[in-house]
Amino acid sequence: MNKQQLIDNIWRKKSFLCVGLDTDLKKIPQHLLKEDDPIFAFNKAIIDATAPYCVAYKPNLAFYECFGLKGWQAFEKTVKYIKSQYPDQFIIADAKRGDIGNTSAMYARSFFEEMDIDSLTVAPYMGEDSVTPFLQYEGKWVILLALTSNKGSHDFQLTKDTEGERLFEKVLRTSQQWAGDDRMMYVVGATQGRLFEDIRKIVPNHFLLVPGVGAQGGSLEEVCKYGMTKDCGLIVNSSRGIIYADTTENFAAVAAAKSQELQQQMASLLP
Amino acid sequence: MNKQQLIDNIWRKKSFLCVGLDTDLKKIPQHLLKEDDPIFAFNKAIIDATAPYCVAYKPNLAFYECFGLKGWQAFEKTVKYIKSQYPDQFIIADAKRGDIGNTSAMYARSFFEEMDIDSLTVAPYMGEDSVTPFLQYEGKWVILLALTSNKGSHDFQLTKDTEGERLFEKVLRTSQQWAGDDRMMYVVGATQGRLFEDIRKIVPNHFLLVPGVGAQGGSLEEVCKYGMTKDCGLIVNSSRGIIYADTTENFAAVAAAKSQELQQQMASLLP
Repeated sequence: MNKQQLIDNIWRKKSFLCVGLDTDLKKIPQHLLKEDDPIFAFNKAIIDATAPYCVAYKPNLAFYECFGLKGWQAFEKTVKYIKSQYPDQFIIADAKRGDIGNTSAMYARSFFEEMDIDSLTVAPYMGEDSVTPFLQYEGKWVILLALTSNKGSHDFQLTKDTEGERLFEKVLRTSQQWAGDDRMMYVVGATQGRLFEDIRKIVPNHFLLVPGVGAQGGSLEEVCKYGMTKDCGLIVNSSRGIIYADTTENFAAVAAAKSQELQQQMASLLP
Repeated sequence: MNKQQLIDNIWRKKSFLCVGLDTDLKKIPQHLLKEDDPIFAFNKAIIDATAPYCVAYKPNLAFYECFGLKGWQAFEKTVKYIKSQYPDQFIIADAKRGDIGNTSAMYARSFFEEMDIDSLTVAPYMGEDSVTPFLQYEGKWVILLALTSNKGSHDFQLTKDTEGERLFEKVLRTSQQWAGDDRMMYVVGATQGRLFEDIRKIVPNHFLLVPGVGAQGGSLEEVCKYGMTKDCGLIVNSSRGIIYADTTENFAAVAAAKSQELQQQMASLLP
């Protein structure tokens, strides 16, 4: 999916919501455990319920890998289901990969060629040659970690260098030499408040993927106030607040209601 | 495996060699493609050939994930084979994971509980709470990226902060508050030469996992000169230089010879 298509979807649906598919067998409604593939059964119900209100899905690979083969199977089925039933949804594999060149190239082939996923989250620590193999695919995106939503983001990401530039700023600035805003986005946690202003000084036009609204305590209003562009420029993710809002047989209806609620807030915040 | 057991294995075998299982269907001897599971068939032959000369195996997850379900199956079979046939080998899942706490906890469960792997490479960018979930398992290890072997290691890892401390040094120093040298190692590329001296000032006793000898151009002598401790303190990885040294039906014998050659060099370099 290219940038204009993504923007068009956001405007048409008046939503920049991403639903995070952090599917955990311990947390899904227990009646689903009778199904052949409980993870996929849960995802399918959540996707059908929330698709009208969101523009993206973000399966978090950790939750699938931890079930080994079965988990991978559920992941691949989920991706195929979204692509066949809701082809206008932007799919983000939240994998936080990043390795030496030949290894990153293997990951890129896996996610972009074999599975035809739209985008992948990538960690910047290993620098340019760990990221560029992901940038060789037209219409596919790297979403680079810049300033994350967790407490540990303070450990290294805010460290100032001798010029006074913080590490996340250096990541934003340096990585723009690798690709433009048609192929790169950045992860910025919703918990980072006014730092969105500083980020927009460096990347005024890039899309930002924003986790951390909901369970992690970030504010949607604040994110929009300091981070939104004229094209929106934001994909805001909610996982637990939607998919585990209810754990009875009624879970899908409640997930629909929760995502609609967020969509309506988003509609009122769009420029 | 605990630290003393690892040291005992190194002394007994006079080797601190790790064989990297970066198994690529495009590079393995083509007669193996007739096998049911060519990746596992290749790994099994390599393992049987090299086990006398090494103390560790490092399957690189990217190479398995890129084949989806089949890749995972081959990965799990490989781990089980090593554990059952060569229980004194230290297994490193080279996965470079690292995510917010609940996600890292899922990865930890997957690799340490379900698969009973000894250690996992982890990226430090997201800080403490992305790493500590991996430190909850006795006898299991986090191998944190510090100073990698690739060209891109210069982009961010060498950045000096306002106190003059480089990012990789800050990672080494800060992470020691999270666990000791009985549960944490660091990745330091063999291409980093004299920087091993600076690293040993901060982590005099930790084991270092050293990729980059061979195909990437690092020197074993230099690594040992500047990085070795009285306990050895090094696990030096070679992947392509061993497993793809020959691509005929004779590949396993050549891999044995190449790993023996490295083992003999190592024996002469041990204190």
